[in-house]
Amino acid sequence: MHTGRHISGQYNVELEAIRSHVLTMGGLVEQQLAYALRSLVKQDYELAKKVVAEDHNVNSMEVVIDEACTRIIARRQPTAGDLRLVMTIIKTITELERIGDVASRLARTSLENKSADPRYQNSLEPLCRLAIDMLHQVLDAFARLDIDAAAHIYEIDDRVDEEYQNIIRQLTQNMMDEPEMIPTILQVMWSARAIERVGDRCQNICEYIIYCVKGKDVRHSDDKEIYKYKDKE
Amino acid sequence: MHTGRHISGQYNVELEAIRSHVLTMGGLVEQQLAYALRSLVKQDYELAKKVVAEDHNVNSMEVVIDEACTRIIARRQPTAGDLRLVMTIIKTITELERIGDVASRLARTSLENKSADPRYQNSLEPLCRLAIDMLHQVLDAFARLDIDAAAHIYEIDDRVDEEYQNIIRQLTQNMMDEPEMIPTILQVMWSARAIERVGDRCQNICEYIIYCVKGKDVRHSDDKEIYKYKDKE
Repeated sequence: MHTGRHISGQYNVELEAIRSHVLTMGGLVEQQLAYALRSLVKQDYELAKKVVAEDHNVNSMEVVIDEACTRIIARRQPTAGDLRLVMTIIKTITELERIGDVASRLARTSLENKSADPRYQNSLEPLCRLAIDMLHQVLDAFARLDIDAAAHIYEIDDRVDEEYQNIIRQLTQNMMDEPEMIPTILQVMWSARAIERVGDRCQNICEYIIYCVKGKDVRHSDDKEIYKYKDKE
Repeated sequence: MHTGRHISGQYNVELEAIRSHVLTMGGLVEQQLAYALRSLVKQDYELAKKVVAEDHNVNSMEVVIDEACTRIIARRQPTAGDLRLVMTIIKTITELERIGDVASRLARTSLENKSADPRYQNSLEPLCRLAIDMLHQVLDAFARLDIDAAAHIYEIDDRVDEEYQNIIRQLTQNMMDEPEMIPTILQVMWSARAIERVGDRCQNICEYIIYCVKGKDVRHSDDKEIYKYKDKE
């Protein structure tokens, strides 16, 4: 990646430190999401409280990394691939922070609905597993700046969407069958929606990885454009 | 704003061009949102089609401005206030593009639910007005880099949230009263949720404006921290 004209030992150390900080942040967000989803599905309220308490750490990591990125731009004047890496990091941490927000919101939902019938929450389990898996893989692809992996991960979102649609269909039916359960079921629907959006955010990170490596902005191109970065099936 | 050390006539021209491009993009997004909401509330399908057709223009503006920002960083090496302005622009256009996405999604919802009972859609009107007003004001504050205005606008989101809660409460009651209308009402709820999120995105832009002018990252501070930038009541 270090193709810019400002290569220096100290500079590389700084850039690597930022990258590794992003991976630490990613690891924390992944853990937050996994804990939040487990707390929701298994009614584990201690875990939910832990997620809520930890959210501020995700937030401060975003601020610290953002500052480090601005500082490296001002002092080291990166260009070409290095600058793209810094830009990719700035955008990626915004997505990570918002996935962290989702985790915290889901944990709160779990705490606020302790008396709710757990049947509906349980229906979220397959969607949760997909979202966590997608986030895990995208962080891995970011660590290796692997565009082939990014293009593959991009596709997982189709399964996330499909599973989300299944859940919404089922819960809508449940609402019609048991109108007195509507408020409870609505909460579960909002959670499903939030988890589905994690998939979209992971897709955004995939696009940033491709931009970082290839210098091509694929954000608004159609999926075919992105799939061509897959080099194996 | 031009306190960096790379002041030059050409540089200022470039920076001003980017800023003015952001305002053009903001104007288009504002129009998209206003049209989408009118199409939803007034069942104006021609307007809805126009919004869907125009969405790609919002997207390409985002890509063009983003490229211009990266180019100005690489070539002109802005520092201090100029660099913050470029960073603010990069983050602001992401929010604008996603508000554009919301507009396009709302327009599609309006086209896909032509036969739906318009009673429920109409209930969105006050929320729509608040969201459009908030976006309009925030673009104005961005144009003038006015932190006092930004701090005031930040507060409007409380009214957006309150109005959103009212709508959800009412629609939940409607669902329980008329279970056969649940699928229709759910669509309206999703729309309400999307509009409520526009308020959050406007708040994010307010935070970026304060960062740009003051160099202070207020993203995860509590509201009081932001309100202190208001210099009149």
